[in-house]
Amino acid sequence: MVSPAAPPRVVIVGGGFGGLRLAQALADDPVAVTLVDRRNHHTFQPLLYQVATAMLEPAAIARSLRAILRRQANVEVRLGDVTGVDWEAKRVLVAEGDAIGFDTLVLAAGAVTSDYGIAGVAEHAFPLKSAEEALRLRHHVLARFERALAGPALIDEGELTFVVVGGGPTGVEMAGALVELIDNVVRKDFPGLDVDRAHVVLVEATDHLIDPFSPKSRHNAAETLAARGVEVRLGTKVEAVTASAVHLAGGEEMPTRTLVWTAGVRANPLADALGLAQAEGRRIVVEDDLSVPGHPDCFVIGDLAASRNEEGALDPQMAPLAQQGARHVAEQLRRRRQRLATERFHYQNKGVMATIGRNAAVAELPNGMRFKGRLAWVMWLALHLQRLVGYRNRFDVLSSWAWNYLTTDRTARLMIGPDDRHPGSQ
Amino acid sequence: MVSPAAPPRVVIVGGGFGGLRLAQALADDPVAVTLVDRRNHHTFQPLLYQVATAMLEPAAIARSLRAILRRQANVEVRLGDVTGVDWEAKRVLVAEGDAIGFDTLVLAAGAVTSDYGIAGVAEHAFPLKSAEEALRLRHHVLARFERALAGPALIDEGELTFVVVGGGPTGVEMAGALVELIDNVVRKDFPGLDVDRAHVVLVEATDHLIDPFSPKSRHNAAETLAARGVEVRLGTKVEAVTASAVHLAGGEEMPTRTLVWTAGVRANPLADALGLAQAEGRRIVVEDDLSVPGHPDCFVIGDLAASRNEEGALDPQMAPLAQQGARHVAEQLRRRRQRLATERFHYQNKGVMATIGRNAAVAELPNGMRFKGRLAWVMWLALHLQRLVGYRNRFDVLSSWAWNYLTTDRTARLMIGPDDRHPGSQ
Repeated sequence: MVSPAAPPRVVIVGGGFGGLRLAQALADDPVAVTLVDRRNHHTFQPLLYQVATAMLEPAAIARSLRAILRRQANVEVRLGDVTGVDWEAKRVLVAEGDAIGFDTLVLAAGAVTSDYGIAGVAEHAFPLKSAEEALRLRHHVLARFERALAGPALIDEGELTFVVVGGGPTGVEMAGALVELIDNVVRKDFPGLDVDRAHVVLVEATDHLIDPFSPKSRHNAAETLAARGVEVRLGTKVEAVTASAVHLAGGEEMPTRTLVWTAGVRANPLADALGLAQAEGRRIVVEDDLSVPGHPDCFVIGDLAASRNEEGALDPQMAPLAQQGARHVAEQLRRRRQRLATERFHYQNKGVMATIGRNAAVAELPNGMRFKGRLAWVMWLALHLQRLVGYRNRFDVLSSWAWNYLTTDRTARLMIGPDDRHPGSQ
Repeated sequence: MVSPAAPPRVVIVGGGFGGLRLAQALADDPVAVTLVDRRNHHTFQPLLYQVATAMLEPAAIARSLRAILRRQANVEVRLGDVTGVDWEAKRVLVAEGDAIGFDTLVLAAGAVTSDYGIAGVAEHAFPLKSAEEALRLRHHVLARFERALAGPALIDEGELTFVVVGGGPTGVEMAGALVELIDNVVRKDFPGLDVDRAHVVLVEATDHLIDPFSPKSRHNAAETLAARGVEVRLGTKVEAVTASAVHLAGGEEMPTRTLVWTAGVRANPLADALGLAQAEGRRIVVEDDLSVPGHPDCFVIGDLAASRNEEGALDPQMAPLAQQGARHVAEQLRRRRQRLATERFHYQNKGVMATIGRNAAVAELPNGMRFKGRLAWVMWLALHLQRLVGYRNRFDVLSSWAWNYLTTDRTARLMIGPDDRHPGSQ
C-alpha cells in the first residue's frame, strides 16, 4: 500500500491583509498551508488611530489568527519570529522553534515605521503600526492631562502640545481624532484643567495633505482640520526629535512631549535578511508575476513587494495592494498546477478615503467622483465595518461607534498596562 | 461681603469597591471630595480570572473613574501614587504632583498579593489583582501552547502544567476556567498539539477548598473540579518556587512554568508608611467606628482596615466589607456634622458564592440556604452583572458571556502588549 503523496506546502510569512487573504483563498486547493506570524492576531491597522484616541479597545480591531482560520482544514498557524530563509533546504528559519519546510514561500510581512534616519525619532516618537503601539500612545496622551492636573508646576511648555508628523491619511485621521478627544472628552473629564492650553499640530513636509487625493479634497481636509482647531503646518520638515521638543527645518524648536510619527514606512527588516535585491523603501524586487527573480517558488505580496505599474511606478502601499496580491498569487499557484504560464500582476486602484472626524471625511473613486462631509464619513464607516474580519469584531466596533456617537463619550479611555501606574513617566 | 466658607474636603485614597462607593455616597453632602488612585480606572476584581482565561477583555471589567464620577459635581479625581500622610499639615503626599490637603481622610487602598515570605513567589508566580496582571497571565498561558507547537523539543516536563496555589474562591474559579480554556479552546485552536499533556493542579495548604463555605459546598467544589480534570491537592504546602518548578512540603518537586498565586493577601504597603498601628496581615488598627486611634479625622475601610466583629475576629476581606464600610463612614460623617456620637461598624455577611465553570457554581446564604450546579451558576452570573459599574460594562460582559456560551468559543484569546511578540520568553 502506498500512502498518497503529501500535498505541497505553501508557507505564508505574515498574517496581515495579504497573508490572511491568501491563506483563505487557498482553502479549497490541494495544498497544505502554514501561516507564520510573530503575533497571535490579525490587526486591522486602518483603525489603530481610534485605539490610540480612546474610541475603540484593541480587541475590537484584532482577532486571533487561530480563531479566524479554525474551520479551514488545510491551514495551520505558527507563532514565530521569522529570521531568514534557507533557500537551499527550502526552509523558513524562526527565532525559536523548528524551521518550517516549504514547497512554495509567500512573503507578506508588510512594512514598518521608517524614521528616514532623522535623529531621535526612534527613541522619542510614537509610531502607530500595532495595537500595542496604539495603546502606548493612548496611555501617554491621557497621562499628559493627568499630570497637568496633578501638579500645575510640573507642566512645561510642551506638556499639552501634541504633534502629528505626516500629512497622509493616517496623520490626518490622527490629528482630527486627537482634537475631538480633547474637545469632547478631556474638557468634561478634567473640569479643573485649562484645556484650552492643549494644542494639536499637524506637520507635513510637502505643500499639501493626503497626497493620493485631488487638490480639492486635499484642500477640504486642511480646511476642516483647521476649523476644528488643528494647526496645520505644510512645507515643514522635521530635522530632529528630543524628549521635550521637535526641531523643524529653519531653526524653529517646538516644545512637545508627544510626537506621533506617521510620516512613512519601509519594508519589514526581514527583507534585509534574505539576500534578495531590494528597491526604494527596501521593498523586495519582484518579477511581473510577483515571484522573486531567481526564486520562482517564492512570491512577495503587499507592502513588502516592489511591484510596479506598466509605467514603472511603484504600487502604493495600501491594504488593497496586499489583498489583490493575495488573490493573484493564489491564481498563479493554480495556473502552475495546470502547467500554464503565470500572469502579470495589475494593481487596481479602488479609490481612496480618509476620515477627518465626526461627520467629516473625504473619498474619491477612480472614475473621478468625489465625496466629502457627512456622506463621505458614512461611506467610510460602512466600508471599514465591512472590511473588518469576523462578526464579533464588527459587532464590537459598531456598538462602540454607536455609543460614542450618541453620547459623545469615549468608553475606551483606560490606561491598562505596564505603565498604567506611572502617569508622569516618559 | 463675605464669601461662603469652602466645604470641608474629604480625601479618599483608592478607587476600589470601598473608595468609589464612598465618593458616590457623598454626592449630596456638603463636602468636597477628592478621590486619589494610582490607576485611572476602577477594576472589577472578581472577574479578573475571566480576563486571564480569555473569556473577557480587560475593558469589560474596568471603567474610567472620571467617566463614572463625571456627573457628580462635588468630586474630583486625582491620579497619583500616595506615598504617605503629613498628619500635622493634614495633607496626603503623592509621588509626583502637589500634596492634597484634607479635613477628613478615608483610606481605602485595599490589599495586595502576599507571598508570605515564600522564596521565589515574588519573582516567578503570577498574581491576579489587576487587569495588567490578568493580561500578563493570559499571554503567558497562551504562549505555553504556542511554544509547545513551535518546537516540540523545546517542551520540558512543566511546560504545559498549570499550577494554581490557593483553594479560596479565586483559586477555584481560576482552576476551573483554565481547564475549560484548555478543553474548549486550546483543543480546537491547536489541532497539531497533544493537548492531553496539559494539566491543571490546584494546591491548597489546608484540608479543604473555599473556606467560608459549608463542608457540603466545599466537597461539591472539589468533586466538580476533579470531574472536570483538575488535580486537587489538599493539605499541600508550597515551600519555594523557581522559574521551572514548585517545591512542595515533603520534598516533592513539581515542574511547571506557570504558577498562579491566589493564596493570600496583605494590606496595601501604604499601610506600613503611615506610622499607624497594624494588626494581622498588616491591616490598620481601627476603632469600632472605623476611625484611626488618635486620628479621629481619618477612617479606614475595606481590606485595609483591621475591623472586627463582636467576638474580636477580623472581618473577611471581601468586596461587601468595603462597600458596607463606605456606607458606614458616609453616615458617620453626617452624624458628626449633626454633632452626634459615631456608631459601631457591623459587617453583615450577605452570603458567599464561587463559580467552578460552565453551569457549575456554589452559593450559600447567611440563613443556611445552599445552591449548587446550574442554578447557583445563573445566580452568580446575575449577581456579578448587577454589581458591575456602568451600563456599558454590563453590556460588554453580557455580550461576551452570551457569545462564549453559545459558541463555546473565547473571543479574548489575544496577546496584545509588550510581550506579544515573544511567546517563548518568560
